[in-house]
Amino acid sequence: METAQNLLKKAQEDIQPFIHRTPVLTSRLIDEISGAELYFKCENFQRMGAFKMRGAANAILNLPEEKRKKGVVTHSSGNFAQALSLAAKNIGIPAYIVMPDTAPEVKKAAVRTYGGKITECPSTLKDREETANKIQDETGATFIHPSNDLDVIYGQGTAALELLQDFPDLDYVVCPVGGGGLIAGTALAVKYFGRNCKCYGAEPMEADDAWRSLQTGKIETNETANTMADGLKTHLGDKNFPIILENVSDIIRVSEEEIFQALKLIWERMKIVVEPSSSTALAAVLREKELFRNKKTGIIISGGNVDLSRLPF
Amino acid sequence: METAQNLLKKAQEDIQPFIHRTPVLTSRLIDEISGAELYFKCENFQRMGAFKMRGAANAILNLPEEKRKKGVVTHSSGNFAQALSLAAKNIGIPAYIVMPDTAPEVKKAAVRTYGGKITECPSTLKDREETANKIQDETGATFIHPSNDLDVIYGQGTAALELLQDFPDLDYVVCPVGGGGLIAGTALAVKYFGRNCKCYGAEPMEADDAWRSLQTGKIETNETANTMADGLKTHLGDKNFPIILENVSDIIRVSEEEIFQALKLIWERMKIVVEPSSSTALAAVLREKELFRNKKTGIIISGGNVDLSRLPF
Repeated sequence: METAQNLLKKAQEDIQPFIHRTPVLTSRLIDEISGAELYFKCENFQRMGAFKMRGAANAILNLPEEKRKKGVVTHSSGNFAQALSLAAKNIGIPAYIVMPDTAPEVKKAAVRTYGGKITECPSTLKDREETANKIQDETGATFIHPSNDLDVIYGQGTAALELLQDFPDLDYVVCPVGGGGLIAGTALAVKYFGRNCKCYGAEPMEADDAWRSLQTGKIETNETANTMADGLKTHLGDKNFPIILENVSDIIRVSEEEIFQALKLIWERMKIVVEPSSSTALAAVLREKELFRNKKTGIIISGGNVDLSRLPF
Repeated sequence: METAQNLLKKAQEDIQPFIHRTPVLTSRLIDEISGAELYFKCENFQRMGAFKMRGAANAILNLPEEKRKKGVVTHSSGNFAQALSLAAKNIGIPAYIVMPDTAPEVKKAAVRTYGGKITECPSTLKDREETANKIQDETGATFIHPSNDLDVIYGQGTAALELLQDFPDLDYVVCPVGGGGLIAGTALAVKYFGRNCKCYGAEPMEADDAWRSLQTGKIETNETANTMADGLKTHLGDKNFPIILENVSDIIRVSEEEIFQALKLIWERMKIVVEPSSSTALAAVLREKELFRNKKTGIIISGGNVDLSRLPF
C-alpha cells in the first residue's frame, strides 16, 4: 500500500499541469500586529480562485481511464462545482453538477463558464443525492465528493506541501476548516514534510462542528451556521475525520468580528482579495497571540471568490 | 545639463532602498476579454500602497543636505501626504502635512501612522498655501508639490522604467492621469527606454481636464469632478504639462460605468485590491479595443488604497 507521503508527492506531480504553483506573500505590518512571522500561501491566485482545483484535478486523474472518460458528477453550489467543471474541461471529460434550484444565478453562470453541465433540483440533501445517482446511472459518470474523498484530500494537501518546500522550517501551518478536505490534506503534508511543524485549524464559532467533533470524538453537525465564512458551513466526513483527529493539534474558533477584522487587514494591507473563509486562519493567529509569538507560521489563504456586484465605496 | 534619460536612471538607483520593485502580473482571462496582451505593473503593492512613494523619495533625496535635514512640507489629503510622510521618516527628516480640516479622520490617521506632522486649515487653496508658506518660514522646510515637480516626475517614471526593463518590447504603456506627475514620468520612461513604444493616458470623462488641455494647448481645469476615481480630480501643472504635450500620444476618456466594470474585473479575476483611479487604464484599453488588439500593453496599476470600512458582502 502506498503511503500518504508518496500519495501527496504523486498528487503534486500529477496535477502540476492543471494548477498554478501559487505565490507565498509576507507582510511586515501584519507580522508586527500579530507578533508572528507569517507566510501566506495564496490560493486565491489559484486557477478558478481557490485551492479546490487541486483536489478536483487529483480525483479525476486518479480514475481509471475507462471510468474517467465517462465523466464526473458532484453536488455543490460553491467553489468545488467550479473547480470540478474546470478541471474536467482541462482534462477533457464531462462534469455534471447538481445544484439546488435556489443557487444564485452568478454561481450557476460561473459553473457554465467552466463547462460544467448543470442539473437543478430542490435543495434538500435527499433530492441532491437522488439527482446525482440518476446522472451516474444514465451517464456512467463517477461521483466525486467535495471533501470526503482521499484523492481530493491528497490534492488539497499539495498547497501546504508546496509551502513547506518553499519554507521547510515552519513551526505551524494554519488553515480554515469546512468540510475537512483541506485540513486533512494540510495535516498530512505537515506530518510528512514539516520539521517539528504542527497543523492548526481555524473555524467560525458560528459553525464550530469540527471543534465539537474533536471534543466528542464523533462527527458533529451545525444546527445553524450564521457566518460570513460561507465556505465553512459544511461538516466533516468519515474519510477525513480520522485523519484530522490524529494529525491536527487543535482547532481555534473565531468570532464573526474577528473574521471581519482579519479580512479587512488582508484586503487593506496586503491588497489582495480573499474570501471571508480564508481570513479565519489569520483571525485565529491574532486571537491566540501567545501561541504564535515569534513562530514561523504558514497560513493557507484558501480562495478569493467573492461576489463584488456591490463595491464597498 | 543632465538628460531626462539619465535623471530617470539616477532616480531609480537613488530611491531603490526606499521602495519595492513591484511585481508585474498578467491575466489570461483579461487578455481574452480585451484582445490585448496586458502587463500590469502593480504599484498597489508599493510601500504605503501607491506609486507616490517613488516621487516623494526622489524629491527628498534630491534636496541638498542642508535643506533636506530641515524637512519637507506639502498640502495633500491623499496618497501623496502619506507617501511624503513615510519617505521622510525612512530618510530620517520631518514631514509637515497641510490638510483641510474637512479631511476624513482615516486619512489623518494614516499620515500620523507614517510619522507626518499634520497642520489643519480651512479647505480653500488660499488657506492651504498660506499655511504651507507659514510652515516653510518657521521651519525652513522645503515645499514639495505632489505632481508639478521635476524630481517627483522622474521618481514616478521609475515604475514604467522598471516595467520596460522587465518587458522591453511593449507597444504601449497606459496610465491614469490626475495631477500629471505619473503620466509625465511614464511618458519620459517610454520615450527613453521603450522600443517603438507609445504612452497613453486614461482619464474619467467626469474630470477630463487633461484631455481638454491637450485639445486647447493650455492647462484646463474641472468645474465639477463627479468621479469614483478620486485620485484623478486634480489638474496639470506648468512643469508636467509641456512633457505631456510632447510625449503622450493621446488621452482616452472613460465613463464611470467603464471604470466600475474594469475595477470589478481586476478585483474578481486578478484577486487584487486596486483603487478606482487605477482601473481607468484598463477601462481605456477595453474601450479602444481596436487600438490595443494583439498589442503588448503595459498598465500602471497606480495604487490600492481604498476605504474598506464597509465591505461589499
